[in-house]
Amino acid sequence: MEFSKVVLADNEIPRQWYNIQADLPTPMRPPLHPGTGKPVGPDDLAPVFPMNLIEQEVSTQRWIDIPEEVLEKYLIWRPSPLCRARNFEKLLNAPVKIYYKNEGVSPPGSHKPNTAVPQAYYNKVFGIKRLSTETGAGQWGSALSMACQMFGLECRVFMVKVSYEQKPYRRLMMGAWGAECIPSPSNRTQAGRKILEADPDCPGSLGIAISEAIEDAVMDPQARYSLGSVLNHVLLHQSIIGLEAQKQFEKIGEYPDVVLGCAGGGSNFAGISLPYVRDKIHGKNVSIVAAEPASCPTLTRGPFAYDFGDTAMTTPLLAMYTLGHDFLPEPIHAGGLRYHGMAPIVSHLAKEGMIEARAFNQLETFSAGVKWARSEGFIPAPETNHVIAAVVQEAERAKQEGKEKVILFNWSGHGIIDLPAYDAFLSGKLVQHELGDEEIKRALKSIEGYPKP
Amino acid sequence: MEFSKVVLADNEIPRQWYNIQADLPTPMRPPLHPGTGKPVGPDDLAPVFPMNLIEQEVSTQRWIDIPEEVLEKYLIWRPSPLCRARNFEKLLNAPVKIYYKNEGVSPPGSHKPNTAVPQAYYNKVFGIKRLSTETGAGQWGSALSMACQMFGLECRVFMVKVSYEQKPYRRLMMGAWGAECIPSPSNRTQAGRKILEADPDCPGSLGIAISEAIEDAVMDPQARYSLGSVLNHVLLHQSIIGLEAQKQFEKIGEYPDVVLGCAGGGSNFAGISLPYVRDKIHGKNVSIVAAEPASCPTLTRGPFAYDFGDTAMTTPLLAMYTLGHDFLPEPIHAGGLRYHGMAPIVSHLAKEGMIEARAFNQLETFSAGVKWARSEGFIPAPETNHVIAAVVQEAERAKQEGKEKVILFNWSGHGIIDLPAYDAFLSGKLVQHELGDEEIKRALKSIEGYPKP
Repeated sequence: MEFSKVVLADNEIPRQWYNIQADLPTPMRPPLHPGTGKPVGPDDLAPVFPMNLIEQEVSTQRWIDIPEEVLEKYLIWRPSPLCRARNFEKLLNAPVKIYYKNEGVSPPGSHKPNTAVPQAYYNKVFGIKRLSTETGAGQWGSALSMACQMFGLECRVFMVKVSYEQKPYRRLMMGAWGAECIPSPSNRTQAGRKILEADPDCPGSLGIAISEAIEDAVMDPQARYSLGSVLNHVLLHQSIIGLEAQKQFEKIGEYPDVVLGCAGGGSNFAGISLPYVRDKIHGKNVSIVAAEPASCPTLTRGPFAYDFGDTAMTTPLLAMYTLGHDFLPEPIHAGGLRYHGMAPIVSHLAKEGMIEARAFNQLETFSAGVKWARSEGFIPAPETNHVIAAVVQEAERAKQEGKEKVILFNWSGHGIIDLPAYDAFLSGKLVQHELGDEEIKRALKSIEGYPKP
Repeated sequence: MEFSKVVLADNEIPRQWYNIQADLPTPMRPPLHPGTGKPVGPDDLAPVFPMNLIEQEVSTQRWIDIPEEVLEKYLIWRPSPLCRARNFEKLLNAPVKIYYKNEGVSPPGSHKPNTAVPQAYYNKVFGIKRLSTETGAGQWGSALSMACQMFGLECRVFMVKVSYEQKPYRRLMMGAWGAECIPSPSNRTQAGRKILEADPDCPGSLGIAISEAIEDAVMDPQARYSLGSVLNHVLLHQSIIGLEAQKQFEKIGEYPDVVLGCAGGGSNFAGISLPYVRDKIHGKNVSIVAAEPASCPTLTRGPFAYDFGDTAMTTPLLAMYTLGHDFLPEPIHAGGLRYHGMAPIVSHLAKEGMIEARAFNQLETFSAGVKWARSEGFIPAPETNHVIAAVVQEAERAKQEGKEKVILFNWSGHGIIDLPAYDAFLSGKLVQHELGDEEIKRALKSIEGYPKP
């Protein structure tokens, strides 16, 4: 009998997160204050985040201790298993070994609680009573709802309206964990009201929802804002995925040739890959691949530029790959990947050639996801289908090249709440949007004249 | 840092199922042919089930090897973790240690694939091309859909029409795994057509769906019928839950004082408890408790009698606790527990005083389930909420008695697809049905004059 999973015991869980900022060969461009054009300091961020998280955001310390209180909650579902996809391998019939970290085992079903739990914890310790956030597909909002409940914080979630309507189960999940979920754009904030005036049928976007959540938080001194991706401290928390994977690979005496993740804001991709980027910086031969949607091709078609993290232009200017903060991606089912920008750390690594990116269209991702569900059992989230499409591509390349390959990817979450999307795909109702150059050009006008990184 | 989970490596998975029929101190009453009143033989069952499963159904061999092909599929999600519910313990503030087997980690999210996978396998080996089954809420139908896909069998699921329309996510899940899901009554069978002629708008019932599935199977020599609970071979397959738990408890040097499961047809309860019943037969001091719904109180208020397993009276007569095959329980959200009878093995053990049963009403079960979700994170299935209510009761008793207690229960599945039920509970819309003695008396009329066990 061959093994299918490598499990770690509770006492083998990593006790520290890995901070890539300690190891970058070239420095990252600092976030800029949009008014002064000068780098923002910790104090500029204080109305938005608690100071203990701001310290993590700017830290260059390589290893950061995971607090005991956070480890206790992690242990409810972590360490996540490293699984070998033997049935999927047979189906692909290529010279590859495919391993995946199953982040779908968490209570909300994705990698998101890896950062939701520490964020709720640090806010609690700082004396904050309520967190406000946005969510796309709902994965992040539900994860933060659970984390806030665990530490006795209130939670308010602005959910992109198209997902609020497409995925009612996600908001019910937030309710089960005691949070308040509001479709965005809403009339709760100035930012939301302004957009609704211009377009009452606006389907919403992550950018808009971020603006609403930030405004909601800064208006209440007992509240803070929480972000589920993009920022340095979020990627730091997610590094536990890759750190566990490295321990698990050590146990079986293997090392991946290629590490893959899907990328929207960049957090699950960074979570699995940053510890491997460290190895790469130290000379290891490993390819690192981000899979993004062809309908929101930030890394593959956007420029590296300074841009706002949100549509209402309330954040600092971030140096990142971006399609422009006005870019409104099609309402694809992988709502978690509908973000105009990309985490500055991931963008920096792409700019420096440490990682590469590939785009996949919705139909090929669902085709890969159905193949997966019918061989491995677990039904992947539409976001996860993007990385599975990339894995299929890797397997095909290995077959063509006749080269054996060990593949590791992040199975970022399950798709049980996304079943209507599978139904649409299987009944031929899923449409394919081809993004034109003109659309991208138009969107990029919003950042013309901004500082160049 | 204290541990929260006890995990088994893949190579520690049990290689044999445990068959309680080898250890029963008193013999079980045989199933009877309803026409002759004589015990049914294997040949009577041959048009419905493949002979290799019939052999398991009547076997008295203590240990039955799990085929390699089944183990390979089990390893996709098994061994399931034995978890310590530390946060729930803190909430209850009682002198108890609470352990649970998390069966929600399987792809369909419940314990059902533990038997769906071997049933699909044995049918495949026997040369069967297609399985037919019925499903109410859809847990069983989705598990069998996945298992059939894994072994290349076709799968046809007759789903009670009202559930088909009101609970679409489960049938979408079956579709994702390539099964055909048909609202019942349908025009595919004589039984269905007859009912539709009389009432084209008939919402369907589990009884009708069973009749359709059996007819559909026996009319096609290449097809067989598959049942997700009640039968001996189903309980045999589920014994892997308790066998894993015993290995896991050995690792931490503990032993449970009480073992609990919710009981509808009896399979998940039997799965965790039968290996402990064996210990009890050999002198171990362990309480074994089944938690059932107050609206369908088979073990707590039904007589031990011979009755049909289905409403349409197509099965052999089974010696079991029953409310009568005409009993129509209220449409509670725990659809998996709405069964008029109880597995003959579980019934026999209850009759012999080896296990006890307690009934819980819907509101107290959801109250327990919300407490669980808000402390332990994982959202339980409505069925699972029944056993959690029983755990709360055990903890309260321990507090009153001032006695320390180690509790083990089967967390049979997650409730992510049942979120609308939580929404109804949290918004005060869930109603409480009080079952009167008269209703039970009336239902029991359907078995008057049947053979006495």
